[in-house]
Amino acid sequence: MAVTDPVQNLQTLIRCPSVTPKEGGALSALTAMLEPLGFSVERVTATEPGTPDIENLYARLGSSGPHLMFAGHTDVVPVGDEASWTHPPFSADIANGEMFGRGAVDMKGGIACFVAAVARHIETHGAPKGSISFLITGDEEGPAINGTVKLLEWAAAKGERWDACLVGEPTNPDQLGDMIKIGRRGSISGFVTVHGVQGHVAYPHLADNPIRAVTAMTKALMSPPLDAGTAEFPPTNLEVTAIDTGNSATNVIPAKASFAFNVRFNDTWSADSIQAELIRRLNEAATDQELRAGRPAIRYDITWSERPSHVFLTRDDALISSLSKAIEAKTGRHPALSTTGGTSDARFIKDYCPVVEFGLVGQTMHMVDERVAVADLEKLTDIYAHFIEQWFENAKA
Amino acid sequence: MAVTDPVQNLQTLIRCPSVTPKEGGALSALTAMLEPLGFSVERVTATEPGTPDIENLYARLGSSGPHLMFAGHTDVVPVGDEASWTHPPFSADIANGEMFGRGAVDMKGGIACFVAAVARHIETHGAPKGSISFLITGDEEGPAINGTVKLLEWAAAKGERWDACLVGEPTNPDQLGDMIKIGRRGSISGFVTVHGVQGHVAYPHLADNPIRAVTAMTKALMSPPLDAGTAEFPPTNLEVTAIDTGNSATNVIPAKASFAFNVRFNDTWSADSIQAELIRRLNEAATDQELRAGRPAIRYDITWSERPSHVFLTRDDALISSLSKAIEAKTGRHPALSTTGGTSDARFIKDYCPVVEFGLVGQTMHMVDERVAVADLEKLTDIYAHFIEQWFENAKA
Repeated sequence: MAVTDPVQNLQTLIRCPSVTPKEGGALSALTAMLEPLGFSVERVTATEPGTPDIENLYARLGSSGPHLMFAGHTDVVPVGDEASWTHPPFSADIANGEMFGRGAVDMKGGIACFVAAVARHIETHGAPKGSISFLITGDEEGPAINGTVKLLEWAAAKGERWDACLVGEPTNPDQLGDMIKIGRRGSISGFVTVHGVQGHVAYPHLADNPIRAVTAMTKALMSPPLDAGTAEFPPTNLEVTAIDTGNSATNVIPAKASFAFNVRFNDTWSADSIQAELIRRLNEAATDQELRAGRPAIRYDITWSERPSHVFLTRDDALISSLSKAIEAKTGRHPALSTTGGTSDARFIKDYCPVVEFGLVGQTMHMVDERVAVADLEKLTDIYAHFIEQWFENAKA
Repeated sequence: MAVTDPVQNLQTLIRCPSVTPKEGGALSALTAMLEPLGFSVERVTATEPGTPDIENLYARLGSSGPHLMFAGHTDVVPVGDEASWTHPPFSADIANGEMFGRGAVDMKGGIACFVAAVARHIETHGAPKGSISFLITGDEEGPAINGTVKLLEWAAAKGERWDACLVGEPTNPDQLGDMIKIGRRGSISGFVTVHGVQGHVAYPHLADNPIRAVTAMTKALMSPPLDAGTAEFPPTNLEVTAIDTGNSATNVIPAKASFAFNVRFNDTWSADSIQAELIRRLNEAATDQELRAGRPAIRYDITWSERPSHVFLTRDDALISSLSKAIEAKTGRHPALSTTGGTSDARFIKDYCPVVEFGLVGQTMHMVDERVAVADLEKLTDIYAHFIEQWFENAKA
């Protein structure tokens, strides 16, 4: 069966130009791989006013539990400067043991390997004693509105339940086997406008410079540290990402100034409690008497990013150990159990079942000349196949 | 002699639309007032590549010392929203005891009164026992490159020397007689670009957020206070006038951030010494170990406004007291001797002779419906005439 070869699978997928939000033939190609394996495949188009329609795919093999989900996306980020690629971004050319192409590691490669692993499992052991499903979106690199969230809701509404999920995102910083993600920090962005009083720099007492407050307020957000980290998570970190006044007159104190920040928070906080703490700090700075010198609190507005990413941590030891052992068996490496880095669609899946993330080496993701070592495709397929075997054994027991 | 009437003089001047850099007939009108009084009038056109040619005027009555200069400008700022004016901005209409027009107080009014005062002095006392000159520029409201600086250089080059100068800028905040300016703070602007390292907010250790440094550097510029003020001057004050990053991506730490500041410094400092102190503070913040957490100093560039305004203070007691006494005699008010407010062309004149500033009430300057109380014109003419008399008596003695 051809789909046991992850290299062929990945070439087929890369050659579909599925730049977000385009399906580009990638889901049809995946359907063609899964149906011969016995999967029942459904295509789900999600729509939302003001956003592009997105095609997604849900496929299930088996009807009983235990039920293992593999989650991922076939959409890819734009190619960037196409002329700078050594090999065309949708060529899937192999040179010196590496396959070039947009999505090679993020994350058509992960899908290609999991399909091959399932095919090999069936070849060796027959159909799994339970169910395996693929939850594949075309909106991970886009606004993530018509993707995983809606696909999960759609599947849950028709009665789908899962016992565990593996997301195939590229989690390894340097070498295959470096790192499993067992959780992710939460993320929320704030947008603040501080209202002062415009005036001439020679008469500061007639004005109220909002930049003075911006300096104090941004400092208050950043220090003291929000926490020292937890056993599983690094410390919560806040970065001010912008400050802008748009004032080009050097003799004028501007009327207002705005700033933006993003906070990545660990499980010390919920999205609500971190917002409350940041508001407390902003209010304290806005009323600080040393800053205000007898004036009332400076006036400011704050808005927040619409949908915060909630923090999560997976505590399913059987899931984590099945994956760790498979990685150790096939690479000799003991993967770190990490909660670092950005957000992923795992933040949505964790509301349905325990979820971990493991895939290829992420170094070239989103870059020109995104590529994957062909040897890594074979190795990741081995790991996934071993994991499937281990997981169903553990889940049975 | 008609020019003894400041109201007529001012109407003539306002009706010349001399918006910077246009002469608008104002210097010709002034020539027509001064020549009949015996003044020798010269028109001086100053040029500089990249700036508009500017017409200036220098007029002298008498050839011996002591030599009193009156300095000012006939150019005016733009009218703003002409439709919002109660009376057209070049009409010089009088209504309810007030004359409306651009330049009414800043500072065609001061010129009109001084011309009338000189005319009255000549009528009453004959030609002054010494010399009186007018140094009038058309570039005070513009870039001030082809104005007072060049006119002073030109006059000094041909042997002109002065013993004292009165600048007729509007110095009174509320009522005629409130305030003489006997000095001005210096002014200099700095423009800083801080170079960090761009990166994803989820991986701050791979980036170097320049905003963190901007916050620390601007704070260091503002505190501790640069000084506590001197006997004659308010404390030096620094305002950050802009901070900009131009980064709209909330998940990206920007590569660089820029800020601008302006410092108004008293005679604790020279332009050089205040720059050195501010650089010291910036460097200290840029290398601060708490901020940098083991990293080398953050890299930044700084540029300064091309021509700083130097601080000055007039210590000519005879000049100050002649003017103070004239004001007290005519208004019953004891004027404050102030060094507050912005810069004026007096900062250039102080290199040639002691200089003070006294004129009309500045409340409507640069505004729609700029206007002057007709009674103030008569009163200021009286003050100027009394001052001329006093000054020549003191200078004789």
